[in-house]
Amino acid sequence: MEKKLISNVDKEMKIALEKYKEPENIKRVLSGMRPTGKLHLGNYFGALKAWINLQDRAESFFFIADWHAITTSYNDLSNLSENTVEMMADWLSAGIDPEKSTLFVQSWVKEHAELYLLLGMIVPVRWLERNPTYKEMMENLKDRELATYGFLGYPVLQAADIIIYRADVVPVGIDQIPHLELTREIARRFNNFFGNIFPEPRPFLSEAPKLPGLDGRKMSKSYGNCIYLSDSAEDVEKKVRGMVTDPARVRKTDPGNPEICPVFAYHNIFTDREMIKEIEEGCRKGKIGCVQCKKILAGNLNEFLSPIREKRQEYLLNRKKMIEIFEEGSRKAKKIAAETMEMVRDSMNFLKPEDL
Amino acid sequence: MEKKLISNVDKEMKIALEKYKEPENIKRVLSGMRPTGKLHLGNYFGALKAWINLQDRAESFFFIADWHAITTSYNDLSNLSENTVEMMADWLSAGIDPEKSTLFVQSWVKEHAELYLLLGMIVPVRWLERNPTYKEMMENLKDRELATYGFLGYPVLQAADIIIYRADVVPVGIDQIPHLELTREIARRFNNFFGNIFPEPRPFLSEAPKLPGLDGRKMSKSYGNCIYLSDSAEDVEKKVRGMVTDPARVRKTDPGNPEICPVFAYHNIFTDREMIKEIEEGCRKGKIGCVQCKKILAGNLNEFLSPIREKRQEYLLNRKKMIEIFEEGSRKAKKIAAETMEMVRDSMNFLKPEDL
Repeated sequence: MEKKLISNVDKEMKIALEKYKEPENIKRVLSGMRPTGKLHLGNYFGALKAWINLQDRAESFFFIADWHAITTSYNDLSNLSENTVEMMADWLSAGIDPEKSTLFVQSWVKEHAELYLLLGMIVPVRWLERNPTYKEMMENLKDRELATYGFLGYPVLQAADIIIYRADVVPVGIDQIPHLELTREIARRFNNFFGNIFPEPRPFLSEAPKLPGLDGRKMSKSYGNCIYLSDSAEDVEKKVRGMVTDPARVRKTDPGNPEICPVFAYHNIFTDREMIKEIEEGCRKGKIGCVQCKKILAGNLNEFLSPIREKRQEYLLNRKKMIEIFEEGSRKAKKIAAETMEMVRDSMNFLKPEDL
Repeated sequence: MEKKLISNVDKEMKIALEKYKEPENIKRVLSGMRPTGKLHLGNYFGALKAWINLQDRAESFFFIADWHAITTSYNDLSNLSENTVEMMADWLSAGIDPEKSTLFVQSWVKEHAELYLLLGMIVPVRWLERNPTYKEMMENLKDRELATYGFLGYPVLQAADIIIYRADVVPVGIDQIPHLELTREIARRFNNFFGNIFPEPRPFLSEAPKLPGLDGRKMSKSYGNCIYLSDSAEDVEKKVRGMVTDPARVRKTDPGNPEICPVFAYHNIFTDREMIKEIEEGCRKGKIGCVQCKKILAGNLNEFLSPIREKRQEYLLNRKKMIEIFEEGSRKAKKIAAETMEMVRDSMNFLKPEDL
């Protein structure tokens, strides 16, 4: 399954990269994340890092997609509120800057729901049924009750999220390309019926460095192989000590192969050039042991994580202030979303109240 | 098709009437109508009349379902705004009283959209696919593009419309029973997951007098056989002159059969007892001609319609005031809807903004 998924993604990646070059003259960027738990290094390098770069280049909107979070986990929402707060702390401490970006919570900007409703009226069901994520779920699903109306309409809400800000660029992972294609189709269809209101957003495909999980597989919460932005220094040391290495290397004196070693993949990101070279040589020649190599990595990882960790603690100690940042952002977002909705309602010919 | 529909309805009517007795102790009633054009006498007797009675018995909410109006006619919304205004005028002139009822426009109370979105997350797609209206459309549809996400989710929005006011009773036509059943199921499912917030609304099945169209078929705009609340006195006279009668009766002296005569069906509603008796006898004995019989009916119809027609004109001459009535109602409705949404968001464990 995992293998099939990845090969699909590679095929799509090729097509997508051919079709969408990196956009120039980015005006307005929008992206969101579902608050399903604390962020790990995979999330950081897969998405957050691109956002942090983009916020210096364009007007940026980033939102916590709490409505989207229900699509798959409506049977247990006990952590929804806390996960939203944790995500705020993760973002802010990792470097998403509220002075540069507009940060908001999806469910605090109700206009998204209205546009979702209106867009749904023009989206043929079969557009949604052919969505690969939905098809895959339908094929694999044991509990059909999870195939909900909301899940089927996930791409419609996503389209609303994006086009309500008339964003021109959306930083996405490769698996999101089909959804963004659908967003473009939906925007086009709306424009055809009601006039040219929405730009068709282009994807921004960032080439994230490959950062495997502790066991060498993709880093994923469900595999339990993650290093979290919120992990303590001790946690990080312990996790790194337990990392998988080149299995052929049993003793320190055995020559190792850094290319297949997850620890070395980490060094490539967290360690400086010179030291990387030293480690690579030492490993290949059996001169540096895995224990020492991991110790160096743990130190570097903690150097990277420690300022994040500290800021994170500060934010969590002052939740009210942190929530206020997202309230302020939500107000800003709402202003633009409300403007768009005015245009949408006019173009669809709704009767307007005089002063509601 | 028409025939099949009616026989289905009869079967359902039987089941429904067995299952749902007329509700006692009605607390809060809610119903809506799609603004698809001017109202005719069929709409009046099929729905409005029940509403007018209910507004004296219970707290009543009636709304113009402009969002629902798009589900089937999104390719031409040029009349949406005007149809909404016309519906306001029809309601108010027919006797829906803003002093007794809360009158509002669906799209002016955005909370409906938010609840629609949230309910969608827990409604399995197959519940919607088995909805008879949807199934029938899928069977008969030539243009599959009309099978939209919004149309599939019609019953979800309808559920939101109803339960957001925690209404306990909904006056419905028999064809709406399956939708209301779905509303009850959705409310139940929400309550199971998130706590007991929504009452399960019961239907109020009013036994409307049978009022055929001018040609004896069901009165329907698409048949062009309607008498509208807004028809002028001359229109009414002309339409009644053209009505179908007992086809076996050619000359005045031929004995007629009132039971199969649409004109007589109208007399049963608009003419006083004594005169009805006289007409029935005269018809059966070939003593009163169709021309005279129709003249009497046209007079009575115009007596019924003339005060409605006058009020209607007044309202339309003061659109601003009329729209204000619905704004005031929308504010009242919004207050209750917002209270419900507070409860819903809390029960689903959304993070709340401090002061948004």
